[in-house]
Amino acid sequence: MHDTKTKRLMIIGADAAGMSAAAEARRFDKDLPIVAFDRGGAASYSQCGLPYLVGGVVTDTSRLIARTVEQFAAQDITVHLGHEVTAIDPARGLVRVRELPTGMGHDEPYDRLVIATGASPVPPAVPGLDLEGVFVLDVLEDAIALQTYIRRHRPRHAVIVGGGYIGLEMAENLVRLGLSVRLIQRGEHLFPSVDFDMAMPLAQELERHGVDLSLCDSVLEACEGAHGRVAHVHTNTGELPADLVLLAIGVSPNVVLAQTAGIACGPTGAIAVDDHQRTNMPGIFAAGDCAEHWHRLLRRPAWVPLGTTANKQGRIAGRNAAGGDAAFGGIVGTAITRLFDLEIGRTGLSEREAQAAGIVCVSTTLDSTDHAGYLPDAHPLTVKLVVEMGSGRLIGAQAVGRAGVAKRIDVFATALYAGLTLADLPQLDLAYAPPFNSVWDPLQVAATSLLRQGAIRWGPNQ
Amino acid sequence: MHDTKTKRLMIIGADAAGMSAAAEARRFDKDLPIVAFDRGGAASYSQCGLPYLVGGVVTDTSRLIARTVEQFAAQDITVHLGHEVTAIDPARGLVRVRELPTGMGHDEPYDRLVIATGASPVPPAVPGLDLEGVFVLDVLEDAIALQTYIRRHRPRHAVIVGGGYIGLEMAENLVRLGLSVRLIQRGEHLFPSVDFDMAMPLAQELERHGVDLSLCDSVLEACEGAHGRVAHVHTNTGELPADLVLLAIGVSPNVVLAQTAGIACGPTGAIAVDDHQRTNMPGIFAAGDCAEHWHRLLRRPAWVPLGTTANKQGRIAGRNAAGGDAAFGGIVGTAITRLFDLEIGRTGLSEREAQAAGIVCVSTTLDSTDHAGYLPDAHPLTVKLVVEMGSGRLIGAQAVGRAGVAKRIDVFATALYAGLTLADLPQLDLAYAPPFNSVWDPLQVAATSLLRQGAIRWGPNQ
Repeated sequence: MHDTKTKRLMIIGADAAGMSAAAEARRFDKDLPIVAFDRGGAASYSQCGLPYLVGGVVTDTSRLIARTVEQFAAQDITVHLGHEVTAIDPARGLVRVRELPTGMGHDEPYDRLVIATGASPVPPAVPGLDLEGVFVLDVLEDAIALQTYIRRHRPRHAVIVGGGYIGLEMAENLVRLGLSVRLIQRGEHLFPSVDFDMAMPLAQELERHGVDLSLCDSVLEACEGAHGRVAHVHTNTGELPADLVLLAIGVSPNVVLAQTAGIACGPTGAIAVDDHQRTNMPGIFAAGDCAEHWHRLLRRPAWVPLGTTANKQGRIAGRNAAGGDAAFGGIVGTAITRLFDLEIGRTGLSEREAQAAGIVCVSTTLDSTDHAGYLPDAHPLTVKLVVEMGSGRLIGAQAVGRAGVAKRIDVFATALYAGLTLADLPQLDLAYAPPFNSVWDPLQVAATSLLRQGAIRWGPNQ
Repeated sequence: MHDTKTKRLMIIGADAAGMSAAAEARRFDKDLPIVAFDRGGAASYSQCGLPYLVGGVVTDTSRLIARTVEQFAAQDITVHLGHEVTAIDPARGLVRVRELPTGMGHDEPYDRLVIATGASPVPPAVPGLDLEGVFVLDVLEDAIALQTYIRRHRPRHAVIVGGGYIGLEMAENLVRLGLSVRLIQRGEHLFPSVDFDMAMPLAQELERHGVDLSLCDSVLEACEGAHGRVAHVHTNTGELPADLVLLAIGVSPNVVLAQTAGIACGPTGAIAVDDHQRTNMPGIFAAGDCAEHWHRLLRRPAWVPLGTTANKQGRIAGRNAAGGDAAFGGIVGTAITRLFDLEIGRTGLSEREAQAAGIVCVSTTLDSTDHAGYLPDAHPLTVKLVVEMGSGRLIGAQAVGRAGVAKRIDVFATALYAGLTLADLPQLDLAYAPPFNSVWDPLQVAATSLLRQGAIRWGPNQ
């Protein structure tokens, strides 16, 4: 490892991970030269806000931008947008940069490097996806292009391919814009991040808001109508009108640049990093969606690309690249989304994931309400707990309901981080007043119910 | 200690702690004779729901009752309402019971005893408090009497004495009924459960809803008008119209029965118990508002009477009294209330409490929003963290805002229970989506801000 003072920090990718790295490096070393390159046209914006920008809930694009290039410049952080890094030469400490408008290339020296190249949508291998009117929602430019297309061509029939976060959030936002929306999912399990039993209310919620649902279906071809724009799609079950198609079938880490330079990827396919975000190449760090993420429960690297993790890893990479010493504590697999009036979230491992990891577990599902049932507006809340058989170690939790999901998921995420067991949950001194919950929080009722099933020791004895 | 099988479990007090004990004892031993006595007229109801019953938000009294006497009877648990236990004779294993309607007394044998006599309001030493129209809100009968009085006499000017939970919640509920409400608080600090800086928005919220506030004032006398009913009160600052007076200045534990029988109280004045809820008297347990509560942070008993703790301790007392082995994990000092549109909560120790306990601490207060600021309906949320100087041990958190308070308090309560440090908070894998929070939860932003102040080590190194 280098032990000299960092001379020039370079960052590839100016979004969540990259700019968190830059800002943290600046905090640590106020004199360090810091430069960031990004092929896109905006730095440091909220990718998770894009569906709401398309839907018009966020009315001003600039509100999604956490810090502008000018604001970074004021901190002496130089951000070059529209600049793609095409090669890294670790031996010489150089990267090859191409200015996108002109195609001109030049070399830039670095001393320490943070790779934060993110992830990109995986296009399905289907003809017709190059037609106008077929979109992905990855970067800010995608959202703006989609918005522009909708305003200009006023499409009526949207087909969304994929029932994960982006697919669900875009279904809500396209309905908000008045489009007729159909969501196509390959299997029968929407939002597979939660177990099938917990995901069931999603289909009802989509239908309640007029979204047509094609489960166990997939798109075979997108077909051209007038003006070279998409007009319909063929699926396994027939033909559907579609003057707007959104592909939301998942992402993969952008690792080609790193791999070509000899930087190792892990078994997940993302860049392998240690707890200091160091790659196998001295002086080169990676963070965010392009890197692996240590999973506290699995005790091995996973790949779960999320903004929260990108921000955390970015800070740690930036601090260490600047000469500091910080370690990433790992993820526990937390995720949440809202679909119309329904909140759904998970943390830890789902039952399916736990089984896939060879963990022998028990689970319980509890139907409750988000606050005291005797007050008005108490909404149904379903909580599912997954616990390791015998040991009682908490493995995961999921929740779905109209309110109060994030609260329960976050309590559980904290419990998982701390390594609590099932027997600890009923002991938690959680806040109670009738407008907020019942005297035993549903999470505690679910835990107690599992404890009483006898697969796990009852009494805690702190 | 007894080591023979429990033969007859008796419970004094049939509310949260007592009936939790009864139910848990029944789960543990399906044949154990269980009998409970209560001087009141209802068992196992939600005391915390009483303000909402008075305010008409809860329209049906029966909805506050978790389980009726008949439902307990179906589980072979005998509940005698209107029966006051007037003496305990540990030497002979007897209690003296008085039937309240008739005044008739008789002895009842017990084998194991759970004392769950609760707490009662402390009346201020002020003349005129025996007038009709002066109320406390302690038991269900109080709420019904208050409701009846309001319906019958249609009072117009309510004076509430005391600015804790009950005072605040009743201010909201009396406003809801159309009364003109004035709240009198001895000092200038409403809801002293949180620090003064965090309690400030309460005064504005009261005023915004038309509640008159008399701070640094106290009632000297309640005065009679027509028909023997209260008509006005004299305070330090003058005379106020008051055809309804609610006293809400705090409670003290009901321990005379226990003390007379030789059962020891601790330094807090409540019944001393070990982690199994055992008193100093073999075979006699205590739980809930009449007992002390182990404080995980202070590492000593405290007295914080709350329904959540009563339920927890009741279960543990019941299980152990029936022959089981369970321990209470202790409280961390969590509390929450809602005042009109404002939520306010705390957990751990407030800065004032930490100082009183001799803990050298630092604090930070952060003004943020409950979810992504670029979405509509993002409401201000203020979070305060208190951390032990040097060690970085979490000491307490407080939050106030229009939404999302309970969520943050519960995360922090879980972190306190688990003994996490300040450096752990930014590492927590909390749920994020724009409708729920920002990519860094305000709680994490506050923690990071404190870490950066340098009083505490930055990087966690799990």
